[in-house]
Amino acid sequence: MNASKVTQTLHWDELILAALREDIPWEDVSANAVVAEGARGHADLIAKAEGVVAGLGVFARTFSLLDAGAQVTLHAADGDEVHKGDLLAEVTGDMRAILSAERTALNFLQRMSGIATYTRAAAKLLEGTKTVLLDTRKTTPLLRSMEKYAVTVGGGCNHRFNLSDGVLLKDNHIGAAGGIKNAVERARAYAPFVRKIEVEVESVEELKEALDAGADIVMLDNMKGEALEEAVRLAKGRAKTEISGNVTRENLATYVRLGVDYISSGALTHSAPILDVSLKHLAPVD
Amino acid sequence: MNASKVTQTLHWDELILAALREDIPWEDVSANAVVAEGARGHADLIAKAEGVVAGLGVFARTFSLLDAGAQVTLHAADGDEVHKGDLLAEVTGDMRAILSAERTALNFLQRMSGIATYTRAAAKLLEGTKTVLLDTRKTTPLLRSMEKYAVTVGGGCNHRFNLSDGVLLKDNHIGAAGGIKNAVERARAYAPFVRKIEVEVESVEELKEALDAGADIVMLDNMKGEALEEAVRLAKGRAKTEISGNVTRENLATYVRLGVDYISSGALTHSAPILDVSLKHLAPVD
Amino acid sequence: MNASKVTQTLHWDELILAALREDIPWEDVSANAVVAEGARGHADLIAKAEGVVAGLGVFARTFSLLDAGAQVTLHAADGDEVHKGDLLAEVTGDMRAILSAERTALNFLQRMSGIATYTRAAAKLLEGTKTVLLDTRKTTPLLRSMEKYAVTVGGGCNHRFNLSDGVLLKDNHIGAAGGIKNAVERARAYAPFVRKIEVEVESVEELKEALDAGADIVMLDNMKGEALEEAVRLAKGRAKTEISGNVTRENLATYVRLGVDYISSGALTHSAPILDVSLKHLAPVD
Amino acid sequence: MNASKVTQTLHWDELILAALREDIPWEDVSANAVVAEGARGHADLIAKAEGVVAGLGVFARTFSLLDAGAQVTLHAADGDEVHKGDLLAEVTGDMRAILSAERTALNFLQRMSGIATYTRAAAKLLEGTKTVLLDTRKTTPLLRSMEKYAVTVGGGCNHRFNLSDGVLLKDNHIGAAGGIKNAVERARAYAPFVRKIEVEVESVEELKEALDAGADIVMLDNMKGEALEEAVRLAKGRAKTEISGNVTRENLATYVRLGVDYISSGALTHSAPILDVSLKHLAPVD
Amino acid sequence: MNASKVTQTLHWDELILAALREDIPWEDVSANAVVAEGARGHADLIAKAEGVVAGLGVFARTFSLLDAGAQVTLHAADGDEVHKGDLLAEVTGDMRAILSAERTALNFLQRMSGIATYTRAAAKLLEGTKTVLLDTRKTTPLLRSMEKYAVTVGGGCNHRFNLSDGVLLKDNHIGAAGGIKNAVERARAYAPFVRKIEVEVESVEELKEALDAGADIVMLDNMKGEALEEAVRLAKGRAKTEISGNVTRENLATYVRLGVDYISSGALTHSAPILDVSLKHLAPVD
Amino acid sequence: MNASKVTQTLHWDELILAALREDIPWEDVSANAVVAEGARGHADLIAKAEGVVAGLGVFARTFSLLDAGAQVTLHAADGDEVHKGDLLAEVTGDMRAILSAERTALNFLQRMSGIATYTRAAAKLLEGTKTVLLDTRKTTPLLRSMEKYAVTVGGGCNHRFNLSDGVLLKDNHIGAAGGIKNAVERARAYAPFVRKIEVEVESVEELKEALDAGADIVMLDNMKGEALEEAVRLAKGRAKTEISGNVTRENLATYVRLGVDYISSGALTHSAPILDVSLKHLAPVD
Repeated sequence: MNASKVTQTLHWDELILAALREDIPWEDVSANAVVAEGARGHADLIAKAEGVVAGLGVFARTFSLLDAGAQVTLHAADGDEVHKGDLLAEVTGDMRAILSAERTALNFLQRMSGIATYTRAAAKLLEGTKTVLLDTRKTTPLLRSMEKYAVTVGGGCNHRFNLSDGVLLKDNHIGAAGGIKNAVERARAYAPFVRKIEVEVESVEELKEALDAGADIVMLDNMKGEALEEAVRLAKGRAKTEISGNVTRENLATYVRLGVDYISSGALTHSAPILDVSLKHLAPVD
Repeated sequence: MNASKVTQTLHWDELILAALREDIPWEDVSANAVVAEGARGHADLIAKAEGVVAGLGVFARTFSLLDAGAQVTLHAADGDEVHKGDLLAEVTGDMRAILSAERTALNFLQRMSGIATYTRAAAKLLEGTKTVLLDTRKTTPLLRSMEKYAVTVGGGCNHRFNLSDGVLLKDNHIGAAGGIKNAVERARAYAPFVRKIEVEVESVEELKEALDAGADIVMLDNMKGEALEEAVRLAKGRAKTEISGNVTRENLATYVRLGVDYISSGALTHSAPILDVSLKHLAPVD
Repeated sequence: MNASKVTQTLHWDELILAALREDIPWEDVSANAVVAEGARGHADLIAKAEGVVAGLGVFARTFSLLDAGAQVTLHAADGDEVHKGDLLAEVTGDMRAILSAERTALNFLQRMSGIATYTRAAAKLLEGTKTVLLDTRKTTPLLRSMEKYAVTVGGGCNHRFNLSDGVLLKDNHIGAAGGIKNAVERARAYAPFVRKIEVEVESVEELKEALDAGADIVMLDNMKGEALEEAVRLAKGRAKTEISGNVTRENLATYVRLGVDYISSGALTHSAPILDVSLKHLAPVD
Repeated sequence: MNASKVTQTLHWDELILAALREDIPWEDVSANAVVAEGARGHADLIAKAEGVVAGLGVFARTFSLLDAGAQVTLHAADGDEVHKGDLLAEVTGDMRAILSAERTALNFLQRMSGIATYTRAAAKLLEGTKTVLLDTRKTTPLLRSMEKYAVTVGGGCNHRFNLSDGVLLKDNHIGAAGGIKNAVERARAYAPFVRKIEVEVESVEELKEALDAGADIVMLDNMKGEALEEAVRLAKGRAKTEISGNVTRENLATYVRLGVDYISSGALTHSAPILDVSLKHLAPVD
Repeated sequence: MNASKVTQTLHWDELILAALREDIPWEDVSANAVVAEGARGHADLIAKAEGVVAGLGVFARTFSLLDAGAQVTLHAADGDEVHKGDLLAEVTGDMRAILSAERTALNFLQRMSGIATYTRAAAKLLEGTKTVLLDTRKTTPLLRSMEKYAVTVGGGCNHRFNLSDGVLLKDNHIGAAGGIKNAVERARAYAPFVRKIEVEVESVEELKEALDAGADIVMLDNMKGEALEEAVRLAKGRAKTEISGNVTRENLATYVRLGVDYISSGALTHSAPILDVSLKHLAPVD
Repeated sequence: MNASKVTQTLHWDELILAALREDIPWEDVSANAVVAEGARGHADLIAKAEGVVAGLGVFARTFSLLDAGAQVTLHAADGDEVHKGDLLAEVTGDMRAILSAERTALNFLQRMSGIATYTRAAAKLLEGTKTVLLDTRKTTPLLRSMEKYAVTVGGGCNHRFNLSDGVLLKDNHIGAAGGIKNAVERARAYAPFVRKIEVEVESVEELKEALDAGADIVMLDNMKGEALEEAVRLAKGRAKTEISGNVTRENLATYVRLGVDYISSGALTHSAPILDVSLKHLAPVD
């Protein structure tokens, strides 16, 4: 699995360069003190724990943006399950640049891989069902496109990308519009016609209103027990259903048997611990 | 406790604006569909869990950058321990702007508060000792300054900020220089004189070399048991000592009694789960 | 009618500043030669032709971005029909800044108003029908958000904003996927679930395939005569219908009676002549 | 005829990238859904109408900025007169990138070609005379350098580029200076000595003042009939003459016989309809 | 004398912010360590040597960009001759911000004042003559607009700003064109008509060619003695004359009696030593 | 000696491009008028005076950023002493690009070389001693990294780079903290532990306080005669010593015999005259 080269070119290159500038506002004093300009080296990317790797393209690009002559040979692909000690990639190039880029490259990779690992674990709980696992907009500021990509690597799907490309009417919107019916009508009149209209409901009453208003999707937010079950029954065939609200790898299983269309979880992007990876064995090459 | 206004002005405003543009590449379709242009509203920032809050200035600034007329009244300060249900702040301003900025403001705040919360828990384990808890460069790309600030809010201290402002000679540098002695000499000759020289060692042998070479600080990396104890004894009075390597909230206690000067932990910034916070009760105001 | 202040703040301010820098890479030599620093002035914005005005907010903002003390009083609102000689706004402020900003402010306003004027004329032809007039992505590079806003001012609606927020499968996509059925299936699997799937068809055969594949919207591209009529009949109740292909103010009327849901026209944004407006009567004020 | 590579490198590459980011804030959902990563394709650029082509370099560069491996073979050059159906160029490269760049590349090309086409038609009316056709600063914000280049492709010449590089004293400047004499004196004292001084006049009286003040160029603005003829006679040999004011392709002929040095027309850049061009026949290549 | 506020807003604010970010990539560690957040202070700007001050607006703006509440009261104006110990300005505001901005504000001011001081000294040698002192394009990269402004403060005038806004044909251009006549003809055909054509000549022969070709200005480059005198005589009444080539404050006097129109000197901007200024007496205020 | 390629890539490329855009906001009118697009040429970089060259990498990069096909062959290296007439480099490439980049490339090179030349002369006065010559933060805004590099080329060393990476407590800080002891304590508590603490003192009394407070480095600011000698004696073995305050090439010798660790001089970067260099002999190549 590969990230889109178009996205890499138009968006991720800029993020990587900004991250390199954050870590190297001037120069890498340590590397430049001990390594001669022009010396070339080779290093190994090693997994230090078990998980799903994501972001190898970003990892490789970090080195080549700093050193156009860098060569990164991948021994794994995004989505692969890796184990402690696995050789994931080899980097050859300017040794100063390798040292200078190392931490930035790893910071991207460990974070994206952490999300993919967490998502894969969650997605496995839904295997064999028709329920799709979704992410949210609770992503790290500025890194959303990388994080949502990592979710897809882990086997999840993406909810809307941003506030411009999807309509989701929450309690605050509904209050401002004076009711669900009004809110849906206004959204349908205002939003570009290619948008589906999703409505967040917190009770069976609200659900009924949303269905009557013609919502394309209903988000059952923090609903539990019988109310939730009734809601799913009522919505069947009338709108797509999405369960939302503090869904984690730990509690996801409790929702599986309901047969909803989607379950969304902010934890995929805001609570996934990193996957430990390391650059080792730096050695000079001719 | 407050973040520096100079840092906010020169650096964080740009990050916030970039994050808002990430979430609003065009307009907030949902908000604009249901809220009239010019309507004003009021909302509450509520803690949804227990922890240490950090980033209230960033939270507030997110609203005022989008709406110069927004008023954010803080009921807590960075560093406060908060509990589920606590009212942390109130936001008054243009209702469309409140809705549009909400997620971005919360994404910053929940992440910074998560780091402060994790750090506080770790720092408590060191209370009563002279050992100082440090962060690392294993931060989220582009957000390092916010995350390192959050560490200080939690009671930790900052290691070097970046590759330009501190010298840390690791195995790769030492290898390239042909030994610790050479590496330290080269660093001392090359680096601006205001830098201290830190050397990473993995054995008692290496430690001795580093001490003989005149390292200002020695990082005892992934050392354990007797070797670690001997290392601490040897370094005493000759160099500052720092323990490093997979230190987490869970295993930190095992290092406390050694009496080193510093313990650094990447987990503070790369593995802290978020602190759950929420913007509620949006209502129109005149 | 007003443009969103959030869009103005996050996106249009940057466009305006870039445009001012394009016209003033250094200084306004003519203004600075003859006007004393600090002199204040007043000028009138006058319509020089009949049409629909759009972009008054951008016009006003151009002056206040260059001179925070500038006051722009509007005597018209976006969407108003104006006539030759109408006073649309008054500008008071630093006289050098008024002269320096004049051309940039007018260049934005005349272009947006030209689009609104053209769109209004086209939209009138659809009055009394349920057919909605849409724009396309054939906009001026970098100015799409302003131009699509101007379309809404003129009474049109917006098609998708960009390649990320809408799925539209054209002949090239269908060819690459090996048929309409495959293309729709892949799109449904790949795209975020909040996207509707639109398929472009050029014949009745293709239309049938698209309907069978479950397209949400079918774009009848450059279809004519009986084929077009049959296509509209077939699609009724199964998918939304959009007519597209060289639709202009001149030939739009021929499609009205077909009763399709949407008609899209690139001419709204790429062929609308400007509306002539002028800044006159600059005079000193105390 | 080619645009300057220096301008392309320093300025147009940035405009193209910004335009691509406007159209692809994330990814091209449709292309990525149906086309496999890495697939390569070939497509033809076809003229859909008769006109003068301009901007082929920008067209080609749009593809290669998105895909360094793209090959664009040109079958026409800027300034060529093309006819419906002509093959103007062939594009070979990453198929996803071709689809993603298509609309942006065409939006630039159709606009620049539209200006060249309009200008060529106007310039032809001046053939055989010594009168030169000029553009104005009434250009699309941010695209001025491309549009002024397109004017030269069509056979026109460029008036000043911006407010910093030319002195043009209009009624507002003259009023502020208290008369033409004062305005010219101040401009001559203030402006870098390499600038010529141009004065806009609206009557024979003003013209005389401008000539006496030593204006290098006089702009006869919206003057008609005998007054215009007298003005031209008076200025002969004393200053260069420029006719200005609502000059279009339609009314330009009426000014030809006057034998002025320059005629300037804002319509060249603000009212030229696009030239229709299309990318067709996308097919896979090995 | 004041710099243009338009230039300040569009261009210098960005330079100042970039300079502040260069000096404060993170925070001012020293200031933040010892000064409490929110403390306010007052400081004096003192001249440490005799000279002409320039850049007081930039100095003041540096503080207010970092601290919107800063107040800078000026006791001198650009162009004033100042003496050691003079109080030039007072700064009141956030004490951390004053400390953080101090060096950047002084670095701008001392450099601009150095140029103004040097220029004033040179310009005085031309007093009573009609010869005008000009600068060149030998300015500090990125600071040209500030430096050329400082030249005017010192009493010099500006030559062209950049390669786009003036035509100057040097030996390299003439060689490429195959002679002066060809070069001038091509330039006149190519350049916007508002440009004057200047030709650099190094001998009387070349001068004659340039005059015959109709050059508006001739630059007598590195000519000496009788040849120079003859050149000035020949050019009189046929073209403006400019002396150029290693002109400094020391050798300028030798050219005065020749009565040329212009003398240009790169030394004004590339060899002027700074004027020493200092921020003193920082004290807390309530 | 070479500048770091990482610094070149991450930071200097941007500076060079910005400088090129400053000089070429549009196009090089003179070059484009007389040189045919695509013509290639060759030119020589010649030293016009004696000095130490620095910035050859920046010089070369300026051409290759504007013309990827440019070839720059260096005949000297940074740090070489050059003489009038020496051939330093040859440039081959697009002739228009050579002409367009010439002035910008030279402006960088002459400034950096001027600093290296001045520094070399000053550093020679310290040969045979253990005293190290340092620069300051009195650099040209935006060019600090290049200027500090040039100092090292000349044989000096770098003081801190910016306000974030070094602690230097001056009179203003000490006043704000209520004494040297407090200031040092606060700095030690606040600053990242990798920073050394430097204190500026102006008398023997202050020096004693600073030593007692444990300052790592003491800056003896503007101290003279016996006081200075006593200060040096007192500090010996207790802290590193730095002499500072209006140190120039002229007065540096008076400090040599004191045997301090460091002498810092702002003049290295703010008062060094340029080294004259020139691009000559542009000729066409096939």
